[in-house]
Amino acid sequence: MAFELTILGSSSATPTSERYPTAQVLNASGRFFLIDCGEGTQIQIRRQKIGFGKINHIFISHLHGDHFYGLIGLISTFNLLGLTRDIHIYSPSQLKDIIQPQLDFLKGDLRFNVIFHPLNFKKPQLIFEDKKIEVISFPLKHSINCCGFLFREKQKEANIKKEYIRQYQIPIAQIKDIKQGADFVAANGEVILNSLLTTPPPTPLSYAFCSDTAFHPPIADVIKNVDLLYHEATFTEELREWANKTYHSTALDAAKMAKMTNAGELIIGHFSSRYKEVEPFLNEAQTVFSNTLDAVDGKTYPVKRKQ
Amino acid sequence: MAFELTILGSSSATPTSERYPTAQVLNASGRFFLIDCGEGTQIQIRRQKIGFGKINHIFISHLHGDHFYGLIGLISTFNLLGLTRDIHIYSPSQLKDIIQPQLDFLKGDLRFNVIFHPLNFKKPQLIFEDKKIEVISFPLKHSINCCGFLFREKQKEANIKKEYIRQYQIPIAQIKDIKQGADFVAANGEVILNSLLTTPPPTPLSYAFCSDTAFHPPIADVIKNVDLLYHEATFTEELREWANKTYHSTALDAAKMAKMTNAGELIIGHFSSRYKEVEPFLNEAQTVFSNTLDAVDGKTYPVKRKQ
Repeated sequence: MAFELTILGSSSATPTSERYPTAQVLNASGRFFLIDCGEGTQIQIRRQKIGFGKINHIFISHLHGDHFYGLIGLISTFNLLGLTRDIHIYSPSQLKDIIQPQLDFLKGDLRFNVIFHPLNFKKPQLIFEDKKIEVISFPLKHSINCCGFLFREKQKEANIKKEYIRQYQIPIAQIKDIKQGADFVAANGEVILNSLLTTPPPTPLSYAFCSDTAFHPPIADVIKNVDLLYHEATFTEELREWANKTYHSTALDAAKMAKMTNAGELIIGHFSSRYKEVEPFLNEAQTVFSNTLDAVDGKTYPVKRKQ
Repeated sequence: MAFELTILGSSSATPTSERYPTAQVLNASGRFFLIDCGEGTQIQIRRQKIGFGKINHIFISHLHGDHFYGLIGLISTFNLLGLTRDIHIYSPSQLKDIIQPQLDFLKGDLRFNVIFHPLNFKKPQLIFEDKKIEVISFPLKHSINCCGFLFREKQKEANIKKEYIRQYQIPIAQIKDIKQGADFVAANGEVILNSLLTTPPPTPLSYAFCSDTAFHPPIADVIKNVDLLYHEATFTEELREWANKTYHSTALDAAKMAKMTNAGELIIGHFSSRYKEVEPFLNEAQTVFSNTLDAVDGKTYPVKRKQ
């Protein structure tokens, strides 16, 4: 199954002619998670030909407009398209107060519920899980309450080697236990070790989203060994003072975090519109972390299993 | 001075890959009026290289999201850019209730006032005027309260013929009166008729915006002889029943209104995303009103003086 990230917007604060404000879709084994929802997100979703009906979990990092102004338009479009699945929004609690007066003005009644799940800004928290995926929020360090999100596959079961099922006549009823680590005791009393019977499952894939934030070492523990890290890089070191003042990161900060967490790959984005080119960001980050890519609106990045 | 209309968005209800929701900028002799403000308007303004600082009068026809969801993002950007001029919004009164909770969450304090001017849905009303331009709102016929807007140059003064100033030694103090219609009495008592002394001023230019609305003959008196008429055409006659049900117009309706008002030119827009091509709209409208153009995002249409 696909595990890939599509960047819908990579600008900071205000959109530019080429970059929309922050929004991303993570396709995690067929689950489509929308992360932030800046103005124009629904236009970008349409351009990427991502079915609107696939999106019903939306994660909003914080309440600066460039991260959520597209939400009401998206919800309105869900309704106009006749979608009926409930929408779950994981966000700062105040978002409800902002959105509700707008929902009340929507053409006709909503055909679905909008369910708000308030984020915890004190500590990491499991905010979503199903059979295959779990999502953990964790506090970032920004000028207002802000969370990052870690999307992680759950640990899969080991694979049992088919030839041993036949050889030892393993009953179907015991296969589940063996996949979960049990040894097998044959009819003659012989114990067949689990390590012989199985091959280990692949390491779960993971993706972490960190925006907006200053360089913030405490998150490294939560997102350690992540396969793909998106970390904001609003400025380069040239504007270090401004980055500090506004609780944003430089490209160097992002790269340091990727190194500190032992990430597989790093994508930087949320570029200030002051910069016309992305090269200075990449050059700066790659001095510390060579596997750095730049976020490009409309581009899809596969989450690759770390070596 | 320029008098021209730039279409920023021409879609209805939901944006498409090619069309943003409704928004337009009218440059009326150097005044930049923003008419409706669908999601993504600020992106389109930037693409058209229209200075954000030029826009401080915004006209919102009605409170369906595709006509105002871009407003909060635009105001936020005004603030982030450090603009300080007050913003005047002419809209249904409830817009303030929707926008205020969002303004309260803007990064930092607003550096300018947002002044709301409630529209009158009972009768036409002069809602703005300065030395050169006046704007009149007028009720349309839609599923919720909705106004159109007429933008009109004020009547200019006549031009006085320079050769007569010399010939009759007209004192500077009297020139203003003559431009406004007075005759001139020479030193010897001779009366020089105004019609000899002056050439008439050009007819004032005018532009009318009618969206969203069903076909609504009562507006014809207000916008009679308009040079350029924008009239919504969400459907073609094929979907006449649906147009009636949703209080929208067909391309034929728009053309009939252009003919009824004796307009110079007609632009149709607000096309339903059901249609992949614009030709059916144009073909239908042009059977009744040949000077029909289609709205194209990013295109500028000069307002030409009617023959």
